[in-house]
Amino acid sequence: MVTVYGSTPSGNCWKVRQILELTQTPYRWVETDSNAGATRTAEFLAMNPNGKVPLVELDDGARVTESNAILAHFAEKTSWLPPPGLPRTRVFEWLFFEQYSHEPYVAAARNWIRYLKAKERYADRFPEIWQRGHRALAVMELRLKSHPWLTDAGMTIADIALFAYTDVAAEGEFDLAPYPGICHWLDRLRSYPRMRPLSAASAG
Amino acid sequence: MVTVYGSTPSGNCWKVRQILELTQTPYRWVETDSNAGATRTAEFLAMNPNGKVPLVELDDGARVTESNAILAHFAEKTSWLPPPGLPRTRVFEWLFFEQYSHEPYVAAARNWIRYLKAKERYADRFPEIWQRGHRALAVMELRLKSHPWLTDAGMTIADIALFAYTDVAAEGEFDLAPYPGICHWLDRLRSYPRMRPLSAASAG
Repeated sequence: MVTVYGSTPSGNCWKVRQILELTQTPYRWVETDSNAGATRTAEFLAMNPNGKVPLVELDDGARVTESNAILAHFAEKTSWLPPPGLPRTRVFEWLFFEQYSHEPYVAAARNWIRYLKAKERYADRFPEIWQRGHRALAVMELRLKSHPWLTDAGMTIADIALFAYTDVAAEGEFDLAPYPGICHWLDRLRSYPRMRPLSAASAG
Repeated sequence: MVTVYGSTPSGNCWKVRQILELTQTPYRWVETDSNAGATRTAEFLAMNPNGKVPLVELDDGARVTESNAILAHFAEKTSWLPPPGLPRTRVFEWLFFEQYSHEPYVAAARNWIRYLKAKERYADRFPEIWQRGHRALAVMELRLKSHPWLTDAGMTIADIALFAYTDVAAEGEFDLAPYPGICHWLDRLRSYPRMRPLSAASAG
């Protein structure tokens, strides 16, 4: 059986849980709290030298890291990852956009405010974090104001990856009201079969 | 013919040039200096709302962004991108590692020091940038001290992506001497057929 080392509040870890749910892949979840140092122990670093969750152990013992690489691995040969060619390339454009232009801002603001309670400690960084986060949201809005999904291939792992932290952006004090396209897309994803949004898991 | 909008000193743009050279794809290069604001004009933002280079225009006019998505697009069906399954997933692990854990530190230090001449302006950021950059280099070293390439599939776009900024890490004041595995891997890549390292282009 697949084993997932993950932190429940993490959007990157949520992506893994979600693709396993969608593909109905049985898995075991090992809670691993990176904010508490659980990814920096000698034991964990022996499994992933980069010291990050999520980390997946496949049936044959092979370990896979990087949330978006894991998404692509399990989505291969499903409708959530189109075949090679421009349709697949469009999905990867959004996956790299997510890790480089969205997650470091939208996810960081949330982690610092909600989990590390460090809004004052990082006060000088927030203006840039919020500015860049809004820039990423504006790029998404430009697409989503006139299309149901991020690519023309229907719902794909690009939507799953960007749903992760956009769905909980308010916890990083991002107001999504100026982005009606994003809000409707979030609604579509929340009601997609077998979707279990992070916002539902982390509320309460 | 393929058109590339790129900045010559940029490692992300270099990746695109390199995969086009390797695959012997004819292309036209349009120099676009992001440090001088050329990616923030209304004309450029109409082509890429995220305001970044590289940007590729394919034969049919379709535009593709994100350097690592572009690498995968042109490497499809070549030996530089293994077929779907774990070998391909291994390549994508490194591609996402590059954009999330390596480029924001190793490339940023170089850009701030060499191109923006802003070492004093960002003085408070450098300790963290260097620490995280060295952490990424240590992860690479762990693999490369006992293997010729980053994955078991031979030279792939994972090696090309990480070669880009590692090859010029010294320009960000990263000393590579503690990483003999990386140094030998850089030598192998520099002498790989049709490789035109960024370090050769940006020297002098």
